[in-house]
Amino acid sequence: MRKVAVVGGGQTKFGELWDTSFRQMIIEAGTRALEDAGISGEEIDAMYVGNMSSGQFIQQEHIASLIADHSGLAPVPCTRVEAACASGGLALREAMVAVASGIHDVVVAAGIEKMTDVITEVGQEALATVSDQEWEAFVGATFPSFFALMARRHMHEFGTTEEQMALVAVKNHHNACLNAYAQHHVELTVERVLQSPLVSSPLKMLECASLTDGAACLVLVPLEEARKYTDTPVEIAGSGQASDTIALADRESLVGLRATREAARKAYRMARIEPKQVDVAEVHDSTTISELMALEDLGFCRKGEGGKITEEGLTAIDGTLPVNPSGGLEGRGHPIGATGIAQALEIVLQLRGEAGKRQVRKAEVGLTHNVGGSGGTAVVHLFRRR
Amino acid sequence: MRKVAVVGGGQTKFGELWDTSFRQMIIEAGTRALEDAGISGEEIDAMYVGNMSSGQFIQQEHIASLIADHSGLAPVPCTRVEAACASGGLALREAMVAVASGIHDVVVAAGIEKMTDVITEVGQEALATVSDQEWEAFVGATFPSFFALMARRHMHEFGTTEEQMALVAVKNHHNACLNAYAQHHVELTVERVLQSPLVSSPLKMLECASLTDGAACLVLVPLEEARKYTDTPVEIAGSGQASDTIALADRESLVGLRATREAARKAYRMARIEPKQVDVAEVHDSTTISELMALEDLGFCRKGEGGKITEEGLTAIDGTLPVNPSGGLEGRGHPIGATGIAQALEIVLQLRGEAGKRQVRKAEVGLTHNVGGSGGTAVVHLFRRR
Repeated sequence: MRKVAVVGGGQTKFGELWDTSFRQMIIEAGTRALEDAGISGEEIDAMYVGNMSSGQFIQQEHIASLIADHSGLAPVPCTRVEAACASGGLALREAMVAVASGIHDVVVAAGIEKMTDVITEVGQEALATVSDQEWEAFVGATFPSFFALMARRHMHEFGTTEEQMALVAVKNHHNACLNAYAQHHVELTVERVLQSPLVSSPLKMLECASLTDGAACLVLVPLEEARKYTDTPVEIAGSGQASDTIALADRESLVGLRATREAARKAYRMARIEPKQVDVAEVHDSTTISELMALEDLGFCRKGEGGKITEEGLTAIDGTLPVNPSGGLEGRGHPIGATGIAQALEIVLQLRGEAGKRQVRKAEVGLTHNVGGSGGTAVVHLFRRR
Repeated sequence: MRKVAVVGGGQTKFGELWDTSFRQMIIEAGTRALEDAGISGEEIDAMYVGNMSSGQFIQQEHIASLIADHSGLAPVPCTRVEAACASGGLALREAMVAVASGIHDVVVAAGIEKMTDVITEVGQEALATVSDQEWEAFVGATFPSFFALMARRHMHEFGTTEEQMALVAVKNHHNACLNAYAQHHVELTVERVLQSPLVSSPLKMLECASLTDGAACLVLVPLEEARKYTDTPVEIAGSGQASDTIALADRESLVGLRATREAARKAYRMARIEPKQVDVAEVHDSTTISELMALEDLGFCRKGEGGKITEEGLTAIDGTLPVNPSGGLEGRGHPIGATGIAQALEIVLQLRGEAGKRQVRKAEVGLTHNVGGSGGTAVVHLFRRR
């Protein structure tokens, strides 16, 4: 396998982009990525696009063709991959494998979701289709309720508190205020999080990621070619993907995600990197408990200690392991298919030292963690500055 | 890149499978594929699944997780790819690239679609989402109408006749009668095809593929390992993928598909095979004109001569270039995501000499051709007996 590097990236502003179409969003993110990599469209050999539910959100499947067309890049091959909220992470993985295999040289990994053109009920119905239709969605379960069950069990087993969970929202919204592309620019307090409307007990509104429009793109090339494009290439040193039961009721444990642990194990092994070597991480904080469980499942602390290290400030931008400096899904917003790519873009910026006000101090090794549904899929990538 | 071989395959019966669920279908096809390859589930390293619109057809996205779960294979990574009717062909390509890259060794390439659990109108609406939503579907264009426009132009430029087109339906339905897994077991005549109800002039009902349920799976391994599994490995010698404008109105020509020509060029070059070396082909006959154009775009005859060589019987099972011996999309049925995999399975059976009553005489080299939408995506694969 050839080694692979990221040599450019770009994204749209994340938010309720009512005056920007799906087509415009991908062009905007793609153009920024190409400009950042200093390449033209003719140099692109293939594209991979992560998207969850364009068929349900904008009545458009076959978006790979639409994107190749509206980018003016046809007949370049373009492939859509879907794994619920992990669609973007999987697009990155497939793009990496394509470059690693040698079948393509310059590949764009993209992610996009247009969620706010439908009324909220339609959006919620679309989101429910990534849970088990026959055993979960059919009986009315919504996504926050799955994580609420996990939160209750985590509180029961480890004494995790609602205040510790709220601190995740406070930290990630603070970080988002330092990110011009983030959806939510508002400083929170623990009190305000705890007093926000209950979504599914114990999770409150300000602890759950919102509906968001957005797109993000990265440019990948073989590592050995990377210095032709940039002085600051970032190697994709490891990639791990795993699945789990789609229905929560079939899992052995509710206090963590097996798919995360398995994907992380593979990524660490491939990169020959250990958790303690990671300098900065973007993890899948679809809810506050999701981030706490991710810290544990990724090996950054022992099981049950996610709340404690958050409380101690270790995961703040000036902490020993900054987590979600971009603002995460909660602060930056969560345009589903785009999230996995935006996570990687943040790590690339951090490792290049270009993250501005939210730059972490020492950044040689970064990690991204993208979860589909309630944990039926997980994708973990490791990045290294070269 | 490592060379890749198919060492096993299996499929469900194609048809209106009202008593079989999506979950049951994929298990049935997968079990047959594993039995054929002589392997157990524990040996599988990864799965790729082609599916167009499970979100719209059965209110279930994230099917990769569902399939890994219900196969009992979690945490094995499973990835869904979508490119309208070319979803299966793309799943095969991604699975091939994964094995070629070295990141995985034993990979299942699957395709599935459950289309008949919704009323026909919902099915038609789902199908329309793979055309350009803003410029085609929104104004009421349906899929047969795109191919009707191409047929009219083909008739105008080359004198192609309705009888020549009808002969494609007659041939493919005849072949399907020899295939126990095919949906339509009925012998047709040119008269009966011409007298069937008009769908979109000049295309009649018996010239258009039907709504179908079905699943198909293949097992891929590195070619150098293939003889551990089977005495009759089939190499995937070439793979080509291309895109085109999603909207028909933006194309330079209506008498062929640029994406097909471009994908074929890449596949032939990779395999170092020329069109005249192909012994048997499964092409994307979503309508009768689709097959005639494919014959031309794949280099089997000159542009405009597709009708003529069909009339001469060259594409019959006992002709010099048997095309769609399985019955094709028209006779075997067209469960969208499954079609590209079922095409490859037929070529594998033909090259292994296991196609029973529909076995073609000399079969060393085979080709599959899978089209998404009205030609916005095309995938071509070349196979060689080893």
